[in-house]
Amino acid sequence: MENCTVGRAMAVLGERWTFVVLREVFNGLRRFEEMREHTDIPRQVLTNRLAVLVDEGLLRRVPYQEPGSRARYEYRLTEKGFDLYPVLVAILRWGDRYLADPEGSPVEVVHRDCGCRVDVRLSCSDGHLIDKPRDLVPRPGPGAHPR
Amino acid sequence: MENCTVGRAMAVLGERWTFVVLREVFNGLRRFEEMREHTDIPRQVLTNRLAVLVDEGLLRRVPYQEPGSRARYEYRLTEKGFDLYPVLVAILRWGDRYLADPEGSPVEVVHRDCGCRVDVRLSCSDGHLIDKPRDLVPRPGPGAHPR
Repeated sequence: MENCTVGRAMAVLGERWTFVVLREVFNGLRRFEEMREHTDIPRQVLTNRLAVLVDEGLLRRVPYQEPGSRARYEYRLTEKGFDLYPVLVAILRWGDRYLADPEGSPVEVVHRDCGCRVDVRLSCSDGHLIDKPRDLVPRPGPGAHPR
Repeated sequence: MENCTVGRAMAVLGERWTFVVLREVFNGLRRFEEMREHTDIPRQVLTNRLAVLVDEGLLRRVPYQEPGSRARYEYRLTEKGFDLYPVLVAILRWGDRYLADPEGSPVEVVHRDCGCRVDVRLSCSDGHLIDKPRDLVPRPGPGAHPR
């Protein structure tokens, strides 16, 4: 499938550290050294991942300057990056369910207003909640290529 | 973060072809040759990806035998694999939004009963729909390690 958007998305995202970097930015870390300290990502890998995320338009570089230091850049999410939040939460919740230590997940994502745990739901544009994979069917979309 | 479940999840999933293989299985393809023909994944890569997905408990191998052929295996989703559906749909929808050809996505996922397009929503356990990243906050979970 030449126009496969799952394949294209994973060509951008399909690397372990990419999501770890995105998680840090979503959690409010914006600066290279903060991310380094918090994640233990090797320096060169972090440099590369940030460059890819900027090139792909998921992060943008914003200059800042601490007194007495040279100008540096911090990283902020673009709209395209923000829109990955459902993917990140879906991965987090699946990882929590199947891959956490016995005592549970190290982090929870909660609703700011009520403090309740956030999860991912599938629903259709007519408002039906979908909780079984068998309730979903694929069909060719407008960009389907004849085979 | 040693107990980071995003990192652990991506150690399993963080490879482009993994999601392409999962997409095929979700779409009903179960056999090696079907997947080969439909995806153009190199033979050895497909073999490796299927083995990882079986080892990680996302797929299980089920024997079948066509008349006149030797016994072979097909691949079916386990519950752990099924539970990745929200991740896959979230990636598909993001890819559709930002990475599709101009004419649109090659495939749509629709609700079997009503035919309406399926999308991913975030909602909290109290039932509030969440549509802005700022409405989400991370907090330490039960498995948080002191640093």
